[in-house]
Amino acid sequence: MSKQQIPYKIYLDESEMPKSWYNLRADMKTKPAPLLNGQTFKPVTADELKAVFCDELVAQELDDTTPYIAIPQEILDFYKMYRPSPLVRAYCLEKKLGTPAKIYYKFEGNNTSGSHKLNSAIAQAYYAKKQGLKGVTTETGAGQWGTALSMACAYLGLDCKVFMVKCSYEQKPFRREVMRTYGASVTPSPSMETAVGRKINAEHPGNNGSLGCAISEAVERAVTSEGYRYVLGSVLNLVLLHQSIIGLECKTALNKYGVKPDIIIGCAGGGSNLGGLISPFMGEKLRGENDYRFIAVEPSSCPSFTRGKFAYDFSDTGAICPLQKMYTLGADFMPSASHAGGLRYHGMSAVLSQLYHDKLMEATSVGQVEVFKAAEYFAKVEGILPAPESAHAIKAAIDEATKCKETGEEKTILFGLTGTGYFDMVAYQRYNDGEMSDYIPTDEEIGKSLAKLPKVE
Amino acid sequence: MSKQQIPYKIYLDESEMPKSWYNLRADMKTKPAPLLNGQTFKPVTADELKAVFCDELVAQELDDTTPYIAIPQEILDFYKMYRPSPLVRAYCLEKKLGTPAKIYYKFEGNNTSGSHKLNSAIAQAYYAKKQGLKGVTTETGAGQWGTALSMACAYLGLDCKVFMVKCSYEQKPFRREVMRTYGASVTPSPSMETAVGRKINAEHPGNNGSLGCAISEAVERAVTSEGYRYVLGSVLNLVLLHQSIIGLECKTALNKYGVKPDIIIGCAGGGSNLGGLISPFMGEKLRGENDYRFIAVEPSSCPSFTRGKFAYDFSDTGAICPLQKMYTLGADFMPSASHAGGLRYHGMSAVLSQLYHDKLMEATSVGQVEVFKAAEYFAKVEGILPAPESAHAIKAAIDEATKCKETGEEKTILFGLTGTGYFDMVAYQRYNDGEMSDYIPTDEEIGKSLAKLPKVE
Repeated sequence: MSKQQIPYKIYLDESEMPKSWYNLRADMKTKPAPLLNGQTFKPVTADELKAVFCDELVAQELDDTTPYIAIPQEILDFYKMYRPSPLVRAYCLEKKLGTPAKIYYKFEGNNTSGSHKLNSAIAQAYYAKKQGLKGVTTETGAGQWGTALSMACAYLGLDCKVFMVKCSYEQKPFRREVMRTYGASVTPSPSMETAVGRKINAEHPGNNGSLGCAISEAVERAVTSEGYRYVLGSVLNLVLLHQSIIGLECKTALNKYGVKPDIIIGCAGGGSNLGGLISPFMGEKLRGENDYRFIAVEPSSCPSFTRGKFAYDFSDTGAICPLQKMYTLGADFMPSASHAGGLRYHGMSAVLSQLYHDKLMEATSVGQVEVFKAAEYFAKVEGILPAPESAHAIKAAIDEATKCKETGEEKTILFGLTGTGYFDMVAYQRYNDGEMSDYIPTDEEIGKSLAKLPKVE
Repeated sequence: MSKQQIPYKIYLDESEMPKSWYNLRADMKTKPAPLLNGQTFKPVTADELKAVFCDELVAQELDDTTPYIAIPQEILDFYKMYRPSPLVRAYCLEKKLGTPAKIYYKFEGNNTSGSHKLNSAIAQAYYAKKQGLKGVTTETGAGQWGTALSMACAYLGLDCKVFMVKCSYEQKPFRREVMRTYGASVTPSPSMETAVGRKINAEHPGNNGSLGCAISEAVERAVTSEGYRYVLGSVLNLVLLHQSIIGLECKTALNKYGVKPDIIIGCAGGGSNLGGLISPFMGEKLRGENDYRFIAVEPSSCPSFTRGKFAYDFSDTGAICPLQKMYTLGADFMPSASHAGGLRYHGMSAVLSQLYHDKLMEATSVGQVEVFKAAEYFAKVEGILPAPESAHAIKAAIDEATKCKETGEEKTILFGLTGTGYFDMVAYQRYNDGEMSDYIPTDEEIGKSLAKLPKVE
């Protein structure tokens, strides 16, 4: 335990960077339920998955016993270009809040993809390359995942085909151009390039697309193209495995200064950032070595944890992907058009769903107006304009720090600052102009999409 | 001299960060010529300058003898939020180029302003605050300086009034929204809020504005508002002083590993980045302690060094600011509308102009198509999408590294990567779509604006 002054930013030396990912499932007493085949409702086999995903990634997805998986040297080398990410002591925020709490955040936005998504993108692209594939397909909504994958593919010389939800393609032309600069082919979805896209366009002419539809197109394109596989940037076990680099770096950095967090907070959409951030800390909790409070923060407009059901559901609206047991609002659920940020997926990572179900983690939901207010506050005080997604965690961290001010408790709070908001200025403009509002779905709306859950159990 | 392996990124510890700025003028045998009053052509007095600029900044502007000026603690604290910036060893670029050269770049883009501009913005805002002012005014073209100043003012609780060139205001709404999020008031220029703005609007209805006009409006607003002063993000001696933090950090980082650069390269618009980057190295050269090659890289569409004249000229088209002796294309010179990036100022820092005139530094100009090609190449290889301005330095660095490949020389190249291109995607889109072209001004065009130089000597 060192008593030295903690700097504003803790950077690990290259030699201190993690050499393995941590597989939290290995320490879970109740493992996440197996994926089921969407037609037969029987557990999917590795071979079934290999038609869609890269072989090595299928192995990682199904492995719930190996605690540490070595990171290949090529991926470590790529990580060195933009990692370690800084663990920041939020001295300015603490002072401004007047709180006795000590606040830290792990900032994943200092790379051109603007978020933590690159951590898994390079890993997935690497395994595709290693398998001798020509390229990969994927979908993107807000565009962070598509950008990250484009960067990874450009680095490795792999073809990258992105189906971008049509309304995002049109409303976020800059994200699209970043992907194009990295050599990716970006197609607005639904397109006329796939059977499922043509079907949707015929049935709903002039529609704006959806994430579920883009997934279906990307999967179809992968399974019908020689030398291609589909990759996905969140939800999956393998993604949480790669994202464990976030938590592992945090833990090493905090250990250097003898700091133990009391509360760990992350925003939750599909769960990739939260799962990665908490993994080594949750592992200690599961092994009985240490205790922590974990808080998942989701938008009140898409409240999978706090108002969803723990059940088997489809991952995509096209029902092409396997069934997963998770907290879900139903695959048909669509957040209100007034919802600005990401975190709009109807379901949640199976790992996090099981942990939440087992009461090892808390969850809370926050409205987007208060989220943007927290984002603006944070930007002014800490000098980083956050992504709307990340601002959910900021809001919850400020709330916890404010409670400490009231009680006088000197708690240590760690939260994940997943990315920057530089490509979200349309949403910030709505906030600046006072045109942002909250929409909280009614029980009827959620009940309607939950009524369509597949009858598995 | 250490022989240890050099990491991908060298970060200084907080304790290693510079505590003083370095004032290169103190070591210059031929000092930059004094500023002249635009009406009388006599050297401006401190009192004349204090009507426009903050007192302490005037002192810094005029001080050409004090080599080191202590950085106030409040500014050091702000620097700790986003500095030290990484000095990156471009292993991936070296490998891709197949060059024996060793390439380093100092990356200043990891902050929300997206560039090095924040280094001087916080200093200027600090001195304004210390003087008890209510606020500051400025102009912004591309928007990096305006964003940086907005961030600094938000942090210090200072009012910030930005005149943004009208075409940028309309074409770069996202930059504008970042400034608004930081609480700045952003006005398209020419506006109806100032006499000079109303005059220009009356004479040229529907015009798109220019940097020169925005400067004039910002200065007028400052001198006619109680408790306000004008601040400027480049060209001035005081700006180069603040930006010396870039070079000082570089030098400390390189010294840790016993590395001495042979060639130091920076893009040059007004000269703030280049001046800051080279300052401690140029100081050694001036004192005869070490030798380096310095290369200023400017756009061929706005070639102040390579085709301009070393003469007294106005800093702004409105001829409100003092005259400065510098390399200039004439205050009336406007780069072609097809020019995408920044670096569009007609003149150049007086310090750098004198150094270039004294043959202590080289200069080269590059076309924008080849600049964007270098930018795309760099983005794919090093994972950072550069600002078009920064890509000028990338292009020159790649050229020098390629020469090393031909000759087999293991030269060490250092260049300044001043910022990111996240708000420049309209220009990247033009490049991606093959719609970008070069425009090189004719001798007649340059001669026309040079003919209007004030007759001082």
